[in-house]
Amino acid sequence: MHKFFSPKSIAVIGASYDSKKVGHIVVSNLLKQGYGGRLFLVNPKGGRLFDHKVYKSFSEIKHSVDLVVFAVSSDLVIKLLPEIVRSGVKNFVIYAAGFKEVGDLQKEQVIKDLSEKNSLLILGPNCIGFVNTVDKINLTFLKGRVKSGNIGMVSQSGAIGSWLVDYFADHYNLGFSYFISVGNQTVIDTAKSLRFLADDIKTKVIACYLEGVVDGGEFRSALSYAVTKKPVIILKSGKTEKGAEAVSSHTGSLVGSDSVFQALFDQLGVIRAESLSEFLFLLKLFSYERQPKSENLMVITNGGGVGVLLTDDLISEGVNLVYLSKETVHKLKTGFNLKRVSIHNPLDILGTANADDFKLAIESGLLDSSVGAVVVLLTPQANTEIVQTARVVVKQQKKSNVPILPIFLGGKSVDKSLDLFEKHKIVGLSDFSCLPSSLKKVFNWQRCLKKDYSLLLKNLIQTESYKTIKIDFKQDNCLSKALGFLLKNNFPVLDFAVVSNEKQLVSAMKKLSAPYVIKADLESSLHKTDKQAVRVAVDSKDLVEAFYDLKNKGFERLVLQSFCKGAEFFIGLKQDPNFGVVLALGLGGVYVETLKSFISLVHPFDFFDFKRALKSAEFYNILSGQRGLVKTDLFSLYNLISRITKLVVDNNVKELDLNPVIFQKDKFFIADARFVFK
Amino acid sequence: MHKFFSPKSIAVIGASYDSKKVGHIVVSNLLKQGYGGRLFLVNPKGGRLFDHKVYKSFSEIKHSVDLVVFAVSSDLVIKLLPEIVRSGVKNFVIYAAGFKEVGDLQKEQVIKDLSEKNSLLILGPNCIGFVNTVDKINLTFLKGRVKSGNIGMVSQSGAIGSWLVDYFADHYNLGFSYFISVGNQTVIDTAKSLRFLADDIKTKVIACYLEGVVDGGEFRSALSYAVTKKPVIILKSGKTEKGAEAVSSHTGSLVGSDSVFQALFDQLGVIRAESLSEFLFLLKLFSYERQPKSENLMVITNGGGVGVLLTDDLISEGVNLVYLSKETVHKLKTGFNLKRVSIHNPLDILGTANADDFKLAIESGLLDSSVGAVVVLLTPQANTEIVQTARVVVKQQKKSNVPILPIFLGGKSVDKSLDLFEKHKIVGLSDFSCLPSSLKKVFNWQRCLKKDYSLLLKNLIQTESYKTIKIDFKQDNCLSKALGFLLKNNFPVLDFAVVSNEKQLVSAMKKLSAPYVIKADLESSLHKTDKQAVRVAVDSKDLVEAFYDLKNKGFERLVLQSFCKGAEFFIGLKQDPNFGVVLALGLGGVYVETLKSFISLVHPFDFFDFKRALKSAEFYNILSGQRGLVKTDLFSLYNLISRITKLVVDNNVKELDLNPVIFQKDKFFIADARFVFK
Repeated sequence: MHKFFSPKSIAVIGASYDSKKVGHIVVSNLLKQGYGGRLFLVNPKGGRLFDHKVYKSFSEIKHSVDLVVFAVSSDLVIKLLPEIVRSGVKNFVIYAAGFKEVGDLQKEQVIKDLSEKNSLLILGPNCIGFVNTVDKINLTFLKGRVKSGNIGMVSQSGAIGSWLVDYFADHYNLGFSYFISVGNQTVIDTAKSLRFLADDIKTKVIACYLEGVVDGGEFRSALSYAVTKKPVIILKSGKTEKGAEAVSSHTGSLVGSDSVFQALFDQLGVIRAESLSEFLFLLKLFSYERQPKSENLMVITNGGGVGVLLTDDLISEGVNLVYLSKETVHKLKTGFNLKRVSIHNPLDILGTANADDFKLAIESGLLDSSVGAVVVLLTPQANTEIVQTARVVVKQQKKSNVPILPIFLGGKSVDKSLDLFEKHKIVGLSDFSCLPSSLKKVFNWQRCLKKDYSLLLKNLIQTESYKTIKIDFKQDNCLSKALGFLLKNNFPVLDFAVVSNEKQLVSAMKKLSAPYVIKADLESSLHKTDKQAVRVAVDSKDLVEAFYDLKNKGFERLVLQSFCKGAEFFIGLKQDPNFGVVLALGLGGVYVETLKSFISLVHPFDFFDFKRALKSAEFYNILSGQRGLVKTDLFSLYNLISRITKLVVDNNVKELDLNPVIFQKDKFFIADARFVFK
Repeated sequence: MHKFFSPKSIAVIGASYDSKKVGHIVVSNLLKQGYGGRLFLVNPKGGRLFDHKVYKSFSEIKHSVDLVVFAVSSDLVIKLLPEIVRSGVKNFVIYAAGFKEVGDLQKEQVIKDLSEKNSLLILGPNCIGFVNTVDKINLTFLKGRVKSGNIGMVSQSGAIGSWLVDYFADHYNLGFSYFISVGNQTVIDTAKSLRFLADDIKTKVIACYLEGVVDGGEFRSALSYAVTKKPVIILKSGKTEKGAEAVSSHTGSLVGSDSVFQALFDQLGVIRAESLSEFLFLLKLFSYERQPKSENLMVITNGGGVGVLLTDDLISEGVNLVYLSKETVHKLKTGFNLKRVSIHNPLDILGTANADDFKLAIESGLLDSSVGAVVVLLTPQANTEIVQTARVVVKQQKKSNVPILPIFLGGKSVDKSLDLFEKHKIVGLSDFSCLPSSLKKVFNWQRCLKKDYSLLLKNLIQTESYKTIKIDFKQDNCLSKALGFLLKNNFPVLDFAVVSNEKQLVSAMKKLSAPYVIKADLESSLHKTDKQAVRVAVDSKDLVEAFYDLKNKGFERLVLQSFCKGAEFFIGLKQDPNFGVVLALGLGGVYVETLKSFISLVHPFDFFDFKRALKSAEFYNILSGQRGLVKTDLFSLYNLISRITKLVVDNNVKELDLNPVIFQKDKFFIADARFVFK
C-alpha cells in the first residue's frame, strides 16, 4: 500500500487538452501540488501538454511506471486495462463511473478478476482518486491545491472531500496527510485504507466517510487495529431507509442496519460524528490535540443568557459542569472584588467584562485541578475587548495543557479572533450548537480507552466457563423442546409443563402456581400470538376451559407456565449480513415494536461493552431501580447473554428470540423461545 | 406602550464623560442611531457632553420629558425615582442590576409600588434598554448602530441581543424593528412586549428569548394573541435543573417545568428554536418570508455523499422528500440526456454539474406543483461554477414563489454566493445541521395554523356536553370513594368491590372474574405500592389467603378488582405554578418513571392539541396498533381526558393520578385513582 500511494512514476491515460475534463484537471492538480516524480501523459492525439510529451498509447512509454491512472470512460478502462496489466503494472486508479453503482456487475467483476489473478491494487472505480501531501501527489479532481496536515481521510464520497479541502483552504493548521476516495471499493476498500492510515506516522487522526462495507469481518478487524493507534472519527450515512436507498444509487453499497454499525462503533471506541459541523469540530479537536483532560468543564461567559443556553445543552448531553474548588472560588471572589458576581459554574462575569476580567477567570480555571477544559463564551457587548480577550486565551493556553475552548458568538467582528485561535492550534467556535454532543462523544471515547480488564478477569473467574453446546432439537423445533433444551443447559427458564390431556393438566397445575399461562406447543419458529394460541393470566378455575378451548382450535400439545409478574424484556439474536451475530436486549411485550428501546451488541463483545451499552439505555433504571442491580447481577446478566450468544454462534442459529424474558425482583426468567434454523 | 417606545424627549440621568460607562455609551448610541427628538443629559458635574448642555439635576430641566433613562446605580435609582415621578414623568428605563436577581426583593418592591400607584411604565431594572429603529432610538449599550429590519425582539438577556446585533451588522436585509430587553420584568414584561410587537406593523416576525414568566395567565394570553398576528419564535433556556439554577442567578426568574412550556408552545403554535443556529435560521426564513409552500422538499445536489447525509437528517426529523411527478422525471431525463443520472429525490446531478445543470434541475423542481421548497446542496468541486450557480438560484427564485434554500458547503469560496443570497432575501446556509429540525418546526407551525374546527364541532356534538361535577368525598378521600365517585359520574372505572369480611369477599368474587387484584382501601392521596398494600394477579384459590394477609397487615377495608391484562397507561393532572392545570398522559406501571414517555397538555386545550401531541408520542403505536385507534376512539379518549381535566379545574384539585389506566382492546379502564386536595 505504501508503494501504491507513493509512486515514483505515474502515467495518466486520457490526459486531456480540454480544461473541463478530468484528464486535464488531474494532471493540473498533480503539477500544482508539486509532484517530483516522473509523469507520463497518454492521449491518442499526441502532442505536448503541460510542457510534457503526450504519448499516443501506453505501450510507447519505455520507462517503468509505478501507477497508472485511468481518466477515461468505463468502456475504455475495460478495453485497455488487460494490456497494461500484461506489461507488469500493479497499481491503478480508475475514476470512471458506470460499474456496480449503476447495476453493471459484469464490468465490476472484470476488474475484480483481473486484480485477483495479478495481485493488483486498484483505487476505484467511481472515485475521485487520492492525495498524498507528504509526497506532493494530488491525483484527484478536487478544486486546487490540497493543504497538508495530520488528518488522514478515507471516503466513499468525493464531495465530502471537496467540502473539507475547500474549508481547510482558508483555515490555519488544518490539512490532510492523505485523502483516499475509495468509490466502489472494488479492490482497495475502507478497511485496507484504515490499516494504511493507522500505520502512517504523519497521520494523527483518521477521518472516514462511510456508506457501507465490502467485508464486515475485515472492516471490523481493520477498525479494531486503527483505534489502538489513533482516534478514528467516522461520518456514516444511510441511517434511514431513504438514506440507504440513496447510498445504493451513489456507490452501490449495501448498507445494512445502522444500529449494528452504531453498536460496533461504540464497542470499538470509534467516534461517530452525526453532522458535518460535529465532524469538523472533532477533526479540529484531535488535529490540534486539544481533547479535554477530564469530563469536568468550566464555562466562563460575559453573557448570562447564552451561558444558560449552553449549560442546558451540556447538561442535556450528560456533560458535567464541575464544582469549582474552594481555592478557585476564593480567588475569583477576591479577584473580582464584587459581591454581585455570583461564583457559579457557568461563571457569569457580566456584560461589562473586559479582557482582564476574562484573564482572571481563565487563569483561575486552568489552575483548578478538577477542571478538564475551560470554555470561554464571549458575546460582543459595548465594552467587550474581543481581540484582546482572544490574545488572553492564546497566552493562557500556552501556559497550560488543559485545553481552552473559546466560543466567540457574533458576526465578522469575531473573525480575527477565530483566525488567531487557529494559528495557535486552539479550537474556536462561532456557535456552540455542536459542542455538547461532540464533547459527549469524546468523553465516551476516552472511557472506552480506559477499560479495566483486571476487574473483568477477577469477576469472570467466578462465573462458569462457557462450554460449547450442540443444539439437538433442530428436527423437532417446538417450544417445549426449545425450553427443555435451554433448561437442561442451565439457562434460567421459567418452570413449564407439557400437557396433552386433562390428567397431565391437573398434575401440572399442582406443580405450578396459579394463575397460569397456557399456550400451544407450536413449531418454535412461529409467532404464537399471531395464531391466538396463547392465554395469559388464566385463573385456576378457568384453566380447564382454556385448555379445551385451545385443544378445540386444533393445538394437540400445550405448554403450561405460571403467570409471572414483572417487567418484560426480550433478548434477540440474528445474523447480520455484515458483522455476524448481533444481540439485542430491550423492553419486551407490546413495547418491543413501539418503543424500540433496546441495546445492540455485536459478537464478540466483552463485559465493558455490555455495561456501557446497558447504562446508556433508558430502560436501565427498571433493572437498577427495583432491587438495585449491583455488580454481581450485572455479571449474571452478562453471563446469560454471553452464553446465549455463544449458543447462537456455535450452532449457526439464524434467529433466536427470547420474548418475554421476565425480570422479577433481581432475576430473569425465560418464558418463551423462538429458534429459527437455516 | 407606543408612547413609551417612541418618546419625543428623553432625559438620561447619569450621562457620563467616561467613555467606558453605560451613561456615556447609551447617549453615544442614541446619537449614532440618529435620534431626532429632544435629549437632556443629567450629571451633577454639569458642563457639555456630545455638544449638549449637561444639567446638574433633573429638576433643572424646564421642558416636558417623555422618558427618563437611569444610567446610575440601584441605590441612586431608588433615591431619585420618587422625585422625578412627582414631576409627572410616566416612562422609565432602569439599567442597574442589584434587585430581585441578587435577592434584594425590597428594592424591587419599591419600584413596583411606585409604578402601581402612579401608573408608570418601567423597563428593567437589570436590562440593557430598548431599540426602536423606526424612530431611530437606541437606548441600549449594545455595540454600535443597530440595523433596522422587520424582526421584533423581546429578550431576557442582553447578550442574545448583542450577538444578533453583531451578526446582523455584516449581513444583508436583516435587522430589528424593535429590540426590548426586559431584564427583571418588574413592570414591562415579556407579555406586554409581545402584545406591543404583535400590533406593530413594521414587525413581521417576533423573536423572544425567554427564561421565565411573571404571570403565566397574562403570558399565555399575550402569546395567544401574538401568534394570530405573526410567527413567534422563542428561544427558551432553563431546560435542565442546572440551567434553571443559572437562570435564577441571571434574572431572578422562577423557571417552572420546561415540559409545560413546551406543551403550551405546541398548543399555541409558537416555534421554539432549540439552538442559536436554529434561531438564526428561523428568523431569516420568516424575515425573508421564505417558508416552504408545502411539507414536500426536493433536494438537488452535486455531491452524492452529502446528499445522502442530508436525506438521513431530513427523514429522521420526519421531513418528506417528495416523489417527483412523471413530467418532472421526464423533463430531467430528457434535459440531462444521460442515463447514468438516476432520477431520485435527492437528485444527484454529479460532481461534474455546471451552473446550467443546476438551472435545469431547479427549474424543473419549481414547476412541479408537488414541490414545496427546493433545497440546492452544492459542494465546490473542480468544475463547479459556484457564483454562476448562485446567480441561477437568484434568477430562478425571482420567477417563483416556491422558496429555494441553497446550501453551499465550503470555506470562503462560497461567501460571495451567500452574500448574494441575502441581498435577494434568499435563505442560504453553509452547513445544513440546523435545517431538518428547523423545517420540522415550521411544518408543525403551519399545521397548527390549519386547525379545522368544523370537523371538531361536528364530532363534539356527538359527545356529551360536560357538566360541572362537584367532588363530594373530600372528607373521606379513600380509594373506594374516589373510584365510586368516578364511576357514578360515568368515567370508565374498572369494576370493583369493597370487601371488609370473608362474606363480602366471596360475594365479590362471584361478581368479578378471576384472577384478581386486591388492595387496601387507603386514603387515596397515598401511594399504595409503597406500603405493600397491593396483590396483583391473585388466583381465585389464593384470594382468601391474600385477603387475610392484607387484613393482618392492618388494612381493615380492601378493594377487589379483576386483574385486567393490557397496556398500562397513566393520566396525571397537577397545578403548574405558571399555567394552572396541566395534564399528562403516558405509559404507566414501572415505565412511568423510567421511560418518561408521556404527552403534556395545558388546560384549556382542544381536540387538535390532543391529537397532535398524541401522534407525536412514541407510545402512540400501542394505542393505534392493536385494534386501530380510529377517529371515534380518539374522540372518546379526548372526551375522557377533557372531562377529567374539567373535574380537576372545577374542584381545584391539587393533584390527580389515574395509574394504571388499562388499555384493553380499544377501551380504557381506570383501575386506580389518587386524589390530593389542597
